[in-house]
Amino acid sequence: MYGDGAFETLRAYGGSVFRWEAHADRLRQSCDALEIDHGLDSAALRERIDETLAANELQEAYVKLSITRGRQPGKLDPAPDSDPTVVVYVSPLAKGGTGSESVWDGPARLQTVSTQRIPDEALPAQAKTHNYLNEILARLELRETDADEALMLDLDGNIAEGATCNIFFVDDDGLRTPRLDGSILPGITRETVLAIAEEEGIPVEQSQYEPARLREADEVFLTNSTWEVRPVASVDGKTIGSGGPGPMTRLLSHLFDQRIDERHYRDSD
Amino acid sequence: MYGDGAFETLRAYGGSVFRWEAHADRLRQSCDALEIDHGLDSAALRERIDETLAANELQEAYVKLSITRGRQPGKLDPAPDSDPTVVVYVSPLAKGGTGSESVWDGPARLQTVSTQRIPDEALPAQAKTHNYLNEILARLELRETDADEALMLDLDGNIAEGATCNIFFVDDDGLRTPRLDGSILPGITRETVLAIAEEEGIPVEQSQYEPARLREADEVFLTNSTWEVRPVASVDGKTIGSGGPGPMTRLLSHLFDQRIDERHYRDSD
Repeated sequence: MYGDGAFETLRAYGGSVFRWEAHADRLRQSCDALEIDHGLDSAALRERIDETLAANELQEAYVKLSITRGRQPGKLDPAPDSDPTVVVYVSPLAKGGTGSESVWDGPARLQTVSTQRIPDEALPAQAKTHNYLNEILARLELRETDADEALMLDLDGNIAEGATCNIFFVDDDGLRTPRLDGSILPGITRETVLAIAEEEGIPVEQSQYEPARLREADEVFLTNSTWEVRPVASVDGKTIGSGGPGPMTRLLSHLFDQRIDERHYRDSD
Repeated sequence: MYGDGAFETLRAYGGSVFRWEAHADRLRQSCDALEIDHGLDSAALRERIDETLAANELQEAYVKLSITRGRQPGKLDPAPDSDPTVVVYVSPLAKGGTGSESVWDGPARLQTVSTQRIPDEALPAQAKTHNYLNEILARLELRETDADEALMLDLDGNIAEGATCNIFFVDDDGLRTPRLDGSILPGITRETVLAIAEEEGIPVEQSQYEPARLREADEVFLTNSTWEVRPVASVDGKTIGSGGPGPMTRLLSHLFDQRIDERHYRDSD
């Protein structure tokens, strides 16, 4: 009725979800923002995921963990003593890590849409909730185009994010991505890529950017937990670089894959 | 998963829903905004409501009509050929019209909240959808107060609406209510009250107002289809007038009740 819940999307590699504690932290923030008190700690939630993966005999999987407020009396005011509903959804996905095949169909084609991101003042930007019409409306605008991901701007006209991903670009000075204040979900894969760049000494800037910066960039890529690092072929119909992954995108994607190997395949493969 | 649907809340008086065509129009606008093509015209939808009321032997009822996009493959992109789900929900409500008892528990106590209304640029303001976290967050802020309805502002700090209602106030120059541009749902009861005021020659202004205007007003009242016209006792702890319904609120409420009588009880009562 109201989309009154929070969720996380994760990937399991080698039978174990990637960056669990980061996802658990964000889920806690989402539930805090909605005042949903489910009473389950990070270990209990992880156990439910592990059990669901095991019951479905899945090592490589897409995982969605959803916590909704639970049965309500039907009024808008949430009952203070509700019993939240926890749902774990898993489905098979290709193996990840070094040498793996991507789960996406080629580089993305980005298109600027008129649906703007909901500002933090109206819905907390750090909360990943079941209110997803803003992003659905953005994707619906793509029906008349040949793009497959929406470039959403904030109310000031700066780059915010894709409908389901964070956005990075590369120019002569290094790696750039919109900073988190305002209307941007703090993506876990975004955070991982920033940590990798820091380790590698790649110059990174987080600031506010006009969409023209993307069209002029040497490389553009998108991140989310399912896609990992996905190159962008074009922005608003303009081809970026060669249309395939550029050197920085390939480097970061490779280093990301190595991290997956180290955490989930080092001993077993 | 995404709150991907639209709904209407109505009242049935004497076995028949009030202002059906206005609700059907707004539902059409909501479904158009979401690109949900359910293929049912106004008469077909009304028939479903009438059948549900009859099956439950209800003359006086709360009615909710919900249209969601229907089963989806689980991805954010809506399937273009989805089969929308229509749900009619009814529950008993007190009789309406002249001399009826109100369904609300006394005049409302309004409290300004920090959660601001989602702007039209992010979610179309005229669409009534299943994404209701913005309003739930506003109501959650009331837990620490003795208020029972949230006064939500737009991003410019002007009065927008309550979590579930439109807002009117009365001063020396007549009746005032925020104008529809921006982030305000075009309430059917709001429209009815404005039509009544016009018929009666009551001066009306629709503009942008700072919240201080409410605290200084002679009268404040709220409108929605369930509450009809509900007086406001206090705004941010400050008592409005005598704390009960003022003369303009009583007049408009009486004239509203007469309209209900004329449409639904004239012949039968």
